Amino acid sequence: MDLPKLQVALDCDNTAQAINVLRQVKDEIDVVETGTILIYRDGLSAVSALRAMAPEKIVLADVKCADAGTKCGQSCKQAGADWMTCINAATVPTMSNAQKEIEVQVELYEGWEDENRMQEWLNHGIHQVVYHQSRDAKFAGQKWSEKDVTNVKNLIKLGFKVSVTGGVHPEVLQLFAGVPVYTFIAGRDIREAADPHEQAKKFKDEINKIWG
Amino acid sequence: MDLPKLQVALDCDNTAQAINVLRQVKDEIDVVETGTILIYRDGLSAVSALRAMAPEKIVLADVKCADAGTKCGQSCKQAGADWMTCINAATVPTMSNAQKEIEVQVELYEGWEDENRMQEWLNHGIHQVVYHQSRDAKFAGQKWSEKDVTNVKNLIKLGFKVSVTGGVHPEVLQLFAGVPVYTFIAGRDIREAADPHEQAKKFKDEINKIWG
Repeated sequence: MDLPKLQVALDCDNTAQAINVLRQVKDEIDVVETGTILIYRDGLSAVSALRAMAPEKIVLADVKCADAGTKCGQSCKQAGADWMTCINAATVPTMSNAQKEIEVQVELYEGWEDENRMQEWLNHGIHQVVYHQSRDAKFAGQKWSEKDVTNVKNLIKLGFKVSVTGGVHPEVLQLFAGVPVYTFIAGRDIREAADPHEQAKKFKDEINKIWG
Repeated sequence: MDLPKLQVALDCDNTAQAINVLRQVKDEIDVVETGTILIYRDGLSAVSALRAMAPEKIVLADVKCADAGTKCGQSCKQAGADWMTCINAATVPTMSNAQKEIEVQVELYEGWEDENRMQEWLNHGIHQVVYHQSRDAKFAGQKWSEKDVTNVKNLIKLGFKVSVTGGVHPEVLQLFAGVPVYTFIAGRDIREAADPHEQAKKFKDEINKIWG
C-alpha cells in the first residue's frame, strides 16, 4: 500500500502568510494547497508564489470550480498548479473540460451521493475526490466517525483516489488504518500550531507508523 | 409586478477589462457581477474596483462559496460587495454563516432539487437563488425551454427571489413573460457585443416592454 500523502491547506488571509507557513512545513508535506480564501483574496498570483517556493511539490489550486471548466483549468495551469478542485455540484461537462486542462479533484460537499453521476466522472477521466467535513458543519459539532471511514472505503471501491479533509488531526488518522487513503489534508491544525513544522512532522510520523 | 433587474456578469480575464465593459453599460444595469473567473484571477480587489466605479449600484461577488461562510462573507463585504453567491452544494451552516455577514444568493447547479433543503435555506433567511444553465452544459447544446420557466415559477412559489442566467439573450426574456423574475443576468451577450451599451439597452427595453 502506498503511503498516504500529506497536504497542507493554506487557507490564509494573504500570500505572505501562506509563504510563511509553507517555509516552515515544506520538507514534511507532499501537496501544497492554495486555499480558496487565499485565492479569493489575492487571486491566482498566490498559486504562482507558492509554486515558486516549492517547485518540487504538487501544487493545488483550490478554486472549487463550478462552471467554465476550460477557462478555469487553463488559468490554474498557467498560474503553476498541478491540480485543481471542482465542486461536486458542477456539471459533468464542466469537470470534463477542466480535466482536459489539468488534473481535477472533485470536492464532495452536499448532494454528492449519486453513484451514477460518480461513474460518469470516472468515465470522463476524473479519478480524484476529496471527502469532506465542511468547516462550518464541523463547528456545528460534527465529528469523524466509522461512517466516514465506510464512505471513504466505498469511494475507493468505486475507483477513486480519495483525499480526506475537514478537521483532520494526527489522532484522526488511526481511524483510517488499513484504508488506502490517497492524501490527508490538514489546514488549521498545522497553520495555527505553535510550531507548524513540528505538527506537520507529527502527521508524517503517524502516516509512517500506520501505513509504513 | 416589480420590473426584473438587469445584471451584467463581468467574467473578464482581468479587472481592467471589467472596468472597460462596466464604463459602457453602467447606466443601463442594476447589478454589477464581479465574475468568478475575474476573482480567481485578480482576487477581491476586483470587487473593490467595480464598487468604486459604481457606488450607486448593487455589486455582487460571485465567489460561489462552498465553505467557511463567515470568513468568505466578511471578505466580500469588506471588499465592497452587497451580495455574495454560495454554491448549492454548500452546507446550510455555511450559507447561514455567510448570510449573517452579507446578502447571499444560492447558485443552483447540479443536485439542487430537494425542497426540504431549500426550505432550510429559507428558514435561515436566505431568499435569493440563481437559476442556471451552466456555460458548459449550454455549449453541449442545452437551450432555454418551458421546463426552465416551470422550474423558475416553482422556486418563486417556494418563496425565493429568482435570478435567471446562462446564455440569456434579449429574445429569451419573452419566455418568462408574466413571471416575476427578480433579475436577468447577461454576461457574454453584453460583454462581447460590438456595442455593449446598445446590447444592455436592448435588454432593458425588452424588460420594460414585457414587465412595464
